Amino acid sequence: MNKLAFSLALFFIWPGALVAASIERIDPPNWWAGMHNQDVQLLIHGEGIGGYEVKLDSTDVSLQAVDSTDNANYLFATLKISPSFNKEFVTLKFEKPGQEAIAYQYPIFKREPNSAQRAGFGNRDLIYLITPDRFANGDTSNDAFAEMGDELNRSKEFSRHGGDLQGIINHLDYLEGLGVTQLWLNPVLENKQPKSSYHGYAITDHYKVDPRYGDNALYKKLAKKAKQNGIGLIIDLIPNHIGHKHWWMTDLPSNDWINFNNTFSPTNHMRESVQDPYAVEADRKQFADGWFVASMPDLNQRNPLLANYLIQNAIWWVETANLTGIRIDTWSYSNKLFLSQWSDRILAEYPQLNMVGEEWSTTPNIIAYWQKGAINADGYASNLPSLFDFPLQASISPALIEDENWNTGLIKLYKTLASDAIYPNPSALTIFADNHDMSRVMTQVNGDATLNKMALTLIATLRGTPQIFYGSEIAMQHPGTESHGAIRADFPGGWVDDSVNAFAGKNLTQEQSETLAYVRQLFNWRKSANAIHTGQMHHLAPKDGVYCFTRFNAQERWLICLNKNTNDVTLPFAQLTPLLDSGKTATHFLSQEAQNLTQGLRLKARAADVFRIQ
Amino acid sequence: MNKLAFSLALFFIWPGALVAASIERIDPPNWWAGMHNQDVQLLIHGEGIGGYEVKLDSTDVSLQAVDSTDNANYLFATLKISPSFNKEFVTLKFEKPGQEAIAYQYPIFKREPNSAQRAGFGNRDLIYLITPDRFANGDTSNDAFAEMGDELNRSKEFSRHGGDLQGIINHLDYLEGLGVTQLWLNPVLENKQPKSSYHGYAITDHYKVDPRYGDNALYKKLAKKAKQNGIGLIIDLIPNHIGHKHWWMTDLPSNDWINFNNTFSPTNHMRESVQDPYAVEADRKQFADGWFVASMPDLNQRNPLLANYLIQNAIWWVETANLTGIRIDTWSYSNKLFLSQWSDRILAEYPQLNMVGEEWSTTPNIIAYWQKGAINADGYASNLPSLFDFPLQASISPALIEDENWNTGLIKLYKTLASDAIYPNPSALTIFADNHDMSRVMTQVNGDATLNKMALTLIATLRGTPQIFYGSEIAMQHPGTESHGAIRADFPGGWVDDSVNAFAGKNLTQEQSETLAYVRQLFNWRKSANAIHTGQMHHLAPKDGVYCFTRFNAQERWLICLNKNTNDVTLPFAQLTPLLDSGKTATHFLSQEAQNLTQGLRLKARAADVFRIQ
Repeated sequence: MNKLAFSLALFFIWPGALVAASIERIDPPNWWAGMHNQDVQLLIHGEGIGGYEVKLDSTDVSLQAVDSTDNANYLFATLKISPSFNKEFVTLKFEKPGQEAIAYQYPIFKREPNSAQRAGFGNRDLIYLITPDRFANGDTSNDAFAEMGDELNRSKEFSRHGGDLQGIINHLDYLEGLGVTQLWLNPVLENKQPKSSYHGYAITDHYKVDPRYGDNALYKKLAKKAKQNGIGLIIDLIPNHIGHKHWWMTDLPSNDWINFNNTFSPTNHMRESVQDPYAVEADRKQFADGWFVASMPDLNQRNPLLANYLIQNAIWWVETANLTGIRIDTWSYSNKLFLSQWSDRILAEYPQLNMVGEEWSTTPNIIAYWQKGAINADGYASNLPSLFDFPLQASISPALIEDENWNTGLIKLYKTLASDAIYPNPSALTIFADNHDMSRVMTQVNGDATLNKMALTLIATLRGTPQIFYGSEIAMQHPGTESHGAIRADFPGGWVDDSVNAFAGKNLTQEQSETLAYVRQLFNWRKSANAIHTGQMHHLAPKDGVYCFTRFNAQERWLICLNKNTNDVTLPFAQLTPLLDSGKTATHFLSQEAQNLTQGLRLKARAADVFRIQ
Repeated sequence: MNKLAFSLALFFIWPGALVAASIERIDPPNWWAGMHNQDVQLLIHGEGIGGYEVKLDSTDVSLQAVDSTDNANYLFATLKISPSFNKEFVTLKFEKPGQEAIAYQYPIFKREPNSAQRAGFGNRDLIYLITPDRFANGDTSNDAFAEMGDELNRSKEFSRHGGDLQGIINHLDYLEGLGVTQLWLNPVLENKQPKSSYHGYAITDHYKVDPRYGDNALYKKLAKKAKQNGIGLIIDLIPNHIGHKHWWMTDLPSNDWINFNNTFSPTNHMRESVQDPYAVEADRKQFADGWFVASMPDLNQRNPLLANYLIQNAIWWVETANLTGIRIDTWSYSNKLFLSQWSDRILAEYPQLNMVGEEWSTTPNIIAYWQKGAINADGYASNLPSLFDFPLQASISPALIEDENWNTGLIKLYKTLASDAIYPNPSALTIFADNHDMSRVMTQVNGDATLNKMALTLIATLRGTPQIFYGSEIAMQHPGTESHGAIRADFPGGWVDDSVNAFAGKNLTQEQSETLAYVRQLFNWRKSANAIHTGQMHHLAPKDGVYCFTRFNAQERWLICLNKNTNDVTLPFAQLTPLLDSGKTATHFLSQEAQNLTQGLRLKARAADVFRIQ
């Protein structure tokens, strides 16, 4: 049982009423007056509650619908909350002939000013992805709880290591110093799972932060503190599935709540079956309804009560913790009509919120299908503003490590960008060189710190919103293994006994120190480089191991050049002129060294450099 | 000088006129009354002709325009030919003050009945690609001409080997027997080039068949004979470039006829620069205007006189030789506005003609950009009905040779087809496993004749128009080399002294004989399998090394299954039902063995099989 809901229920029990049925929880635990959609659907869970009538004590809140399911322990009551509602709660009264009535004071909050108009994350930002169990342990008192299951053991890759929200709060200054302006945390909601709970993608309570990370109040505090550091907070939601230890699983809200009749049947991972004109319904169903693993039951979002539950859950967290955006896990694995509705309703509440979906395809037209504004052959509109740019990701390390040839090396990056015309809005994509599910970029480039810096420079300067993975700034790597547990290694300095401490710059290798210094410079420079955020782009076809592009607007122009050669090269002025708009001087963004471009542009061996063009 | 034009010119000289200037040639050498576009632009070449006036002796032919260029040896006269014109020629009279007049009887033919309504190649067909120098030598008297340059030497990969049109004519029965219904020949127009002329892509006369292949009359004869065998003829045209020994090159029609001022500047091959929203004009220009090699001057199709010349040339060959289609070399390398106009005007003459462009990209959205009906971000419409499906080609051998895994093996084929929604008309694509520019499919599959058969079965049964490369039917391969000369090896039996003779089935290996027998059965079966031509398709996601799809219409249903496993497998009925439409019997298309599907479908180890479902 949810501790918070339980205490509320006890506290607000109508004085003097004898309890017949019990109310174990109501989700969402509160709502707000003044939302765009004035309706809220309450999931009411309690033994035998299904047979009860619901009554309200307010003229500013009306009962729109009461839905029962095939489980008598659930009621779904839809309230309409007038914007003029100005109390702290509405009293719900549950009545059944021959039974004592039950009363429940359901909290209805006032919204924060301008909540609906909040700005989401976007092109001006740097998103920093943290696996919270692996970043910093700020509170050793919450490292393990017997009732949570799983094991605390830093020596094991898939056990809990103790990282938490306090650890992140403690290092917000470090993150701000790095140039981070948005935090994406792998899910921090309760994962009361017996194994591998550290990754967070097996939610067991949609309304509760995992106690090993802190609690809901600490999550709100993180959001607030981060904001003081100029950092927004992005929540990672998983509408597709839950953990098999989710509280639902012992008493399912309805027989159709979990796909495949609550029996494990694995997804075929055929993401493209959604777009595929030849796919059979059985494969589409196996894809979308199939489970990832037996410990992750797959949600049936065709059930409108569940769909509503998930949509409200997203809105609840945005409103509660004052979030700037949502990262959606395994985007296409959910029911596609639900996804469309999900995005649409969230954007109706927060028109400028950003949401980025994970669709792991390297084919641009597959990614484009899911972006808001796409004109699709099948008429589908997903309404999702941003997607992770997996096609770009897949081209970055090949561009850097492969020899230059007809179809290898930098040409891969160039060709990937050439497909941008297929996207409704390519600059709304979220770009990255790695994340928690793949080789770290440093390992992708075979442990070459120079190439790691070049990759980060690309992420900092190409169109889209950049996202980096914690540890990229100190060139973390995992040679010899592709184990996810090793990829999500502990950030050095996050634990008191760490001999290496990246936060303090202690005992880093020279390579790491240099990378850290560079990343700080790069992303702090980027904060005010408006043309990088929203400017246009032009690029030259890669030639002789050099690739140059410009980002520009009416006010400023930047030139970014990658030189893969092991020797310095001088690019002739004539070759560069299409990128210069009659500029004659290139000023290096860090050294401030100025070059007269009419003499050609000198590029250092094996480096990515950024120049201001004037 | 062009022999044909020369003889015409001599023959038709106005009796008694004294020659002042001379007319060396007029292109096209004739035209037709009754074309959709009644205008024809004549390129008139002759020393000093530029200053002459043009007059006509007919009221059914009028002079629309006379254009001069900066070369006084050229005149461009545009005639409008009334559909009611019913003579054999119109007399052009060239006059200049103080000079003797010149007269020229310009032939105007009647069109063949239903010429405009001819059907182009399409889904019902099998296209067989021949490199004419390498297929069969039917006339040893034309193997070499001193004045043509290049060397006749069968022992050298890049020399001439003596194959010719008569060789193809001699083996039309063989081709018909194979199931071939369309012939695509690498270019047979004159390539009077000193080296590597055998490939044919360096045209030196747009109106003349290379004498080492025969002559224009023999080309017409081939078309006619082929038609008697139920085989259409597709011409391979190269609007992008010419050979540096083209007759134009010693006396260019205008200073802007050849890109880059008639100076070699290599193309950057950045095909994607056309779609790329970030490409700079310099790169687009270098791509489209740059030359392939110094011996292939790149044509400037922005010159409307040249554009018209090239468009008329295509129409002339279609009309002259009664062709069924055009294959266009290096499609995107030409000026894109010209390409649009080119397709549009040819389709205006022959609405059902087919034309297939070579755009070597494995990215579906890049291919889709060029297909007729595409809605492109930049508004471009190329009007081209068909493109070679390079994305599919690139997935076939990986699908067959790679181990089955997350992202390897059959899944690549499945995923490629899933992108079909991006094409305006995926079934209008031309599909193939190899061509003259890449490894033969047998080599792509590491010399495994079983996989070669599986690849051919895919090409025979997937959506689109199948194209195979000569020799695939006998599993020709080139282990240890990727030399184009080796890929385009002589077809065994095409030369009288060949010890192996595939036409006669003599001395083939057992593997070759089996492949040949299979290809004959496969493509002859295909001729009447209407659901394969135009039916719908459904497929199952690949699973455990097996991939199945169905092609069906209201009348018939085929099931095609690939089993990559080294053991026989039985697919459960339930798994197949989405492809069966309640069919219960699978009858093998060759053995006619029937299986009761309710017992499951037995698939032989390492085989592609086709079943009739009833």
